[in-house]
Amino acid sequence: MPSPAPVKAAIVGASGYSGEELVRLLLRHPHVELTAVTSRQSAGQTVAEVFPRFASVPRARELRFTVPDTAALAAAASVVFLALPHGVAAEFAIPLLKAGCRVIDLSADFRLRSAATYKEFYAHDHPAPELLAEAVYGLPEVHREAIRSARLVASAGCYPTSILLPVIPLLREKVIHPAGIIADSLSGVSGAGRKAEVDYLFCECNESLRPYGVPKHRHLSEIEEQLSLAAGEQVTVQFTPHLVPVNRGILTTLYLAPRERFTSPAEREALESRISRAYQAAYSDEPFVRLLQGKALPDTKNVVGTNVVEIAWRVDPRTGRLVVMSAEDNVVKGASGQAVQSLNILCGFPETAGLLG
Amino acid sequence: MPSPAPVKAAIVGASGYSGEELVRLLLRHPHVELTAVTSRQSAGQTVAEVFPRFASVPRARELRFTVPDTAALAAAASVVFLALPHGVAAEFAIPLLKAGCRVIDLSADFRLRSAATYKEFYAHDHPAPELLAEAVYGLPEVHREAIRSARLVASAGCYPTSILLPVIPLLREKVIHPAGIIADSLSGVSGAGRKAEVDYLFCECNESLRPYGVPKHRHLSEIEEQLSLAAGEQVTVQFTPHLVPVNRGILTTLYLAPRERFTSPAEREALESRISRAYQAAYSDEPFVRLLQGKALPDTKNVVGTNVVEIAWRVDPRTGRLVVMSAEDNVVKGASGQAVQSLNILCGFPETAGLLG
Amino acid sequence: MPSPAPVKAAIVGASGYSGEELVRLLLRHPHVELTAVTSRQSAGQTVAEVFPRFASVPRARELRFTVPDTAALAAAASVVFLALPHGVAAEFAIPLLKAGCRVIDLSADFRLRSAATYKEFYAHDHPAPELLAEAVYGLPEVHREAIRSARLVASAGCYPTSILLPVIPLLREKVIHPAGIIADSLSGVSGAGRKAEVDYLFCECNESLRPYGVPKHRHLSEIEEQLSLAAGEQVTVQFTPHLVPVNRGILTTLYLAPRERFTSPAEREALESRISRAYQAAYSDEPFVRLLQGKALPDTKNVVGTNVVEIAWRVDPRTGRLVVMSAEDNVVKGASGQAVQSLNILCGFPETAGLLG
Amino acid sequence: MPSPAPVKAAIVGASGYSGEELVRLLLRHPHVELTAVTSRQSAGQTVAEVFPRFASVPRARELRFTVPDTAALAAAASVVFLALPHGVAAEFAIPLLKAGCRVIDLSADFRLRSAATYKEFYAHDHPAPELLAEAVYGLPEVHREAIRSARLVASAGCYPTSILLPVIPLLREKVIHPAGIIADSLSGVSGAGRKAEVDYLFCECNESLRPYGVPKHRHLSEIEEQLSLAAGEQVTVQFTPHLVPVNRGILTTLYLAPRERFTSPAEREALESRISRAYQAAYSDEPFVRLLQGKALPDTKNVVGTNVVEIAWRVDPRTGRLVVMSAEDNVVKGASGQAVQSLNILCGFPETAGLLG
Repeated sequence: MPSPAPVKAAIVGASGYSGEELVRLLLRHPHVELTAVTSRQSAGQTVAEVFPRFASVPRARELRFTVPDTAALAAAASVVFLALPHGVAAEFAIPLLKAGCRVIDLSADFRLRSAATYKEFYAHDHPAPELLAEAVYGLPEVHREAIRSARLVASAGCYPTSILLPVIPLLREKVIHPAGIIADSLSGVSGAGRKAEVDYLFCECNESLRPYGVPKHRHLSEIEEQLSLAAGEQVTVQFTPHLVPVNRGILTTLYLAPRERFTSPAEREALESRISRAYQAAYSDEPFVRLLQGKALPDTKNVVGTNVVEIAWRVDPRTGRLVVMSAEDNVVKGASGQAVQSLNILCGFPETAGLLG
Repeated sequence: MPSPAPVKAAIVGASGYSGEELVRLLLRHPHVELTAVTSRQSAGQTVAEVFPRFASVPRARELRFTVPDTAALAAAASVVFLALPHGVAAEFAIPLLKAGCRVIDLSADFRLRSAATYKEFYAHDHPAPELLAEAVYGLPEVHREAIRSARLVASAGCYPTSILLPVIPLLREKVIHPAGIIADSLSGVSGAGRKAEVDYLFCECNESLRPYGVPKHRHLSEIEEQLSLAAGEQVTVQFTPHLVPVNRGILTTLYLAPRERFTSPAEREALESRISRAYQAAYSDEPFVRLLQGKALPDTKNVVGTNVVEIAWRVDPRTGRLVVMSAEDNVVKGASGQAVQSLNILCGFPETAGLLG
Repeated sequence: MPSPAPVKAAIVGASGYSGEELVRLLLRHPHVELTAVTSRQSAGQTVAEVFPRFASVPRARELRFTVPDTAALAAAASVVFLALPHGVAAEFAIPLLKAGCRVIDLSADFRLRSAATYKEFYAHDHPAPELLAEAVYGLPEVHREAIRSARLVASAGCYPTSILLPVIPLLREKVIHPAGIIADSLSGVSGAGRKAEVDYLFCECNESLRPYGVPKHRHLSEIEEQLSLAAGEQVTVQFTPHLVPVNRGILTTLYLAPRERFTSPAEREALESRISRAYQAAYSDEPFVRLLQGKALPDTKNVVGTNVVEIAWRVDPRTGRLVVMSAEDNVVKGASGQAVQSLNILCGFPETAGLLG
Repeated sequence: MPSPAPVKAAIVGASGYSGEELVRLLLRHPHVELTAVTSRQSAGQTVAEVFPRFASVPRARELRFTVPDTAALAAAASVVFLALPHGVAAEFAIPLLKAGCRVIDLSADFRLRSAATYKEFYAHDHPAPELLAEAVYGLPEVHREAIRSARLVASAGCYPTSILLPVIPLLREKVIHPAGIIADSLSGVSGAGRKAEVDYLFCECNESLRPYGVPKHRHLSEIEEQLSLAAGEQVTVQFTPHLVPVNRGILTTLYLAPRERFTSPAEREALESRISRAYQAAYSDEPFVRLLQGKALPDTKNVVGTNVVEIAWRVDPRTGRLVVMSAEDNVVKGASGQAVQSLNILCGFPETAGLLG
């Protein structure tokens, strides 16, 4: 089989943590040529100067950051990644799409179908509501076919990925009630971005454990929209994020109510078989979902630097509840790796290209 | 008011993290003379040699660790702290009580009223079931009067303290359903003790987030027994502990169901008033419970090194649920500080003696 | 002996890490009443609101931050601590001294005797050169008598303290050459202050080890001035600071050349005796210097939260060199604890008041 | 150019940190087939079970750990890596070499030419002194040609690599005095190995900075032997290692004496030119040595996970000394990556194969 032709790709906003990880993944991607990276603050410097850790890669010593310019980007690349704060992506997406580029946006701007929900959670009008119907939610394990032909992919958020992948198969197979879902998540500090704010200084985060955004974090909007799609009915979720002192990683613990209550060991085993089948059906062929077996429980240490989500679950005979746990790297599967996975799909590359090892 | 006469105190098993913290607190306690510390491995060394950080305290340079011997302990002290692994405390408690000492045990051995529950959770017969009826559960905010006259105090566990203090007032005031309680907790690594095990090496814990003991952690036994007492009915709890890379601190997030559902803002405010009154009634005069106001949420950074538990709560209008969060230092309020608080009560000292600043 | 009358103290610039630690130490100081704390950004809030960890102390719930005003400060306090960035302290020191206050400055502004050296290292003219002759360098183990009667104490810097205390006795006793001193230091991130800069974000510091300020860090100016005073001749030092991921602590390793070369074990033992005697003479009665014995080496873990400097040394028979190591808490002995130690001296309190336990 | 034939490789002792990293590098190496991994404690389990993070790699799900057996190893592989504690490697190296394997040993056992030096530093007789003359010191930038034809490569140690690479060019070009070299190093905790010892527990290392092994660490033996070779005369080094709380990384600061003293800026520039030329000559074509330019200083964050050593240097006009700083990943360039680099050389693969990106 001949190697596919390389695709030219660009990154807008490449100086944050997600942008840096995109640079890493695209520099080593076998079917991608990274042709442009933009950052107002780093314009003029090479990738190797801004990110010394990539300096061993020849391309990183040649490629220079530029000030973002949509015409130049459209000329340089057929696929453009947007790694920008929410509210800003539309200003690039509209002209890039018009110029014929395909756009993979890592912000929250195009993840919702409803402009009203966007306004409710993000507190300003959506800047390009006409694109919402077309945008595809970039969670490949759930929307692979739609991504294949998408012009605009709204890559799934970090917390949402850690919640949607474990819950959707259970909702689809009607194993759990759609009501009463609780998601309790821990995130490393890279989730807050490379922003100069006192709250994220080393001494403020190290030796600190704290919840935040209680009870209505913005990511709830996409979590609930996607779960509602899977359930075929409106789903409301209880979600508590916590900031913990690691660089990378999200660990989510989910508390779920099985539809069928069990009173005997046999009934419990029947429930466990249904859960196991639901996960096997959904993920046994997925390269980036690891269903843990036996006594193993997720540990972010096992997924950091990879595009993998680990999932384990336990039925609690004492409470009748199902506890599901997931671990991912928030910057890879929760952001840049997942965006590259979408790139692979829409370009027809093997889905794991550039994402293993 | 004349200063109370100093009490002579001893610590059995003083070389672990709880034991070390007891040493710290008792060395600076204004009404305590630390007369004996035992540790097989450190016998013969001074406290200052084993714990260099206390070397500035003159007493630490004189006092030597000894091999534990109950007769010698009973001669040296009227109050003895046991900081030993579970299953071992009884062997010291029985002779010390016979010799007239008062005993404050930091292990789990005397925390349950039921020897059957002990066997279910700890997998061996209780070594001294005859003492269970007499032992007082050492959670001063809940059992202060019983502690005052106790001979044997079973100081509350670290996770249980972070769960019981926020939940008990709500159960007593019948604000929440006793069913369906979920406790999701994060703990620093000192909770695992100073044990040479690969799982707790720096490189295994740093940059790692992981659940463990799912779904039936041993602490559930005392959590459920104490909550059942407060509720006046059997309470079953869903509890998930997680290990996170901090030295100290427990952060617990609780998901609770208010008894009264609300459909209007007015009903919600009424519920919030009930919750607020329940907590104010329980804790407004408690020196070691801090009810957070306004937008503040608990942060272990604010309690590490102190005997304080921080509590905040939110009623979620979207789910109807009550989310309560608490933060404590697992080695202080979750272990040694709380034990000293019990000492202060049973000796008639001011309850904050040696525990502020 | 009757208790000394409490002194009224104020802190200007109390919202940084040194200021916060001063608040902690003065709130629990037996002979100090903290009457004013200033911070433009926190003005109007209580100490308990800004620093929740102090909320258990009644005074912290009453005392409110104010906008700094020298007249109000002079009315409220007889001793004023300045915890401000360098270059700003003079603007407060001059009017406060005129109003009769004693001033303890934690910045670098009054640590040098030479305004020219100040300009060389800080790149601007000294704002109050007329005060330099009067200011006393606030390193109590070296300048205790001068501090006793000082109006203006320039409390020693964090790195300088970790270097001066181990080196000065060896220079005074002429055990080492004044030339060729090398100081290699590691500092926790609190040393950079509570400033919103990307370089000190959690993700930039965690899992990072890096030198900085090579080869001419500003602290060299006071290190060399003080060592020159002790040596009676001009001393030039090689100093390399490194940033490492801990909240607190400085670990310094010093490479020194003994004046007498040794060729036999007996000569080496003679040298070791001279070193030991120099340290014993200087520090055996010092409450805050701990000379380690036997195989023990300094560890910041043993001094964090205390006002103690640990010192150990080894003569290397293979190189003929003397290696001295010290550990301190950069925010306590390296800043606020040392400032309180000076307060105790100039007020006639026991030098350890408020600084033990 | 046709792809080289894959070489069959085995790892003895693959369950420690170096072994795990070797597994990672060899699983993704384009010219290597990993055919055997041994570990007594993990025998019977697959690589994916022991190291979940590799479970996405198909080979990791097939390959099982075995009990080490030299005959089976020799049948399975033509190159065998030994990742064993010192003192044990010889027992495998002798039969494997006899069976015709090439051996790359990561322990210290064959790094020295002198059995007497080995005994002096390791306190036991060398187990196979007859192999010392043949073994090649595995530092490719220095001994590349000898590695090419070696049967037994003694891969360089972690600290030595961080010291030898910066110092050797300066000694060879006679830019510095061979006397008076001082190396001050910081190491992450993985350097201590995956051993269940209290000293390396999370709570003992986190928030701790400490020197150890002062003044005669074992690695001095190979550092001095290699520097002496480069200098053509006996070199004695002052070396102080420190343990700091990161998982990975070594940061070394070197204090060196230029042979020519300078008194004018022009002389200083001449010296700087000589230094620059020495480094450029040695490393400008080396893929794994990064000579930093401008104001950049080494940071372990920029090399962790890579096989790169960063080097920067400063001539200090105040002291006349040369300060050189290096950063590496102790487990990659300091151990397993360097061993794979040697494999690439002795197998005729591109030297960067499997080591970039």
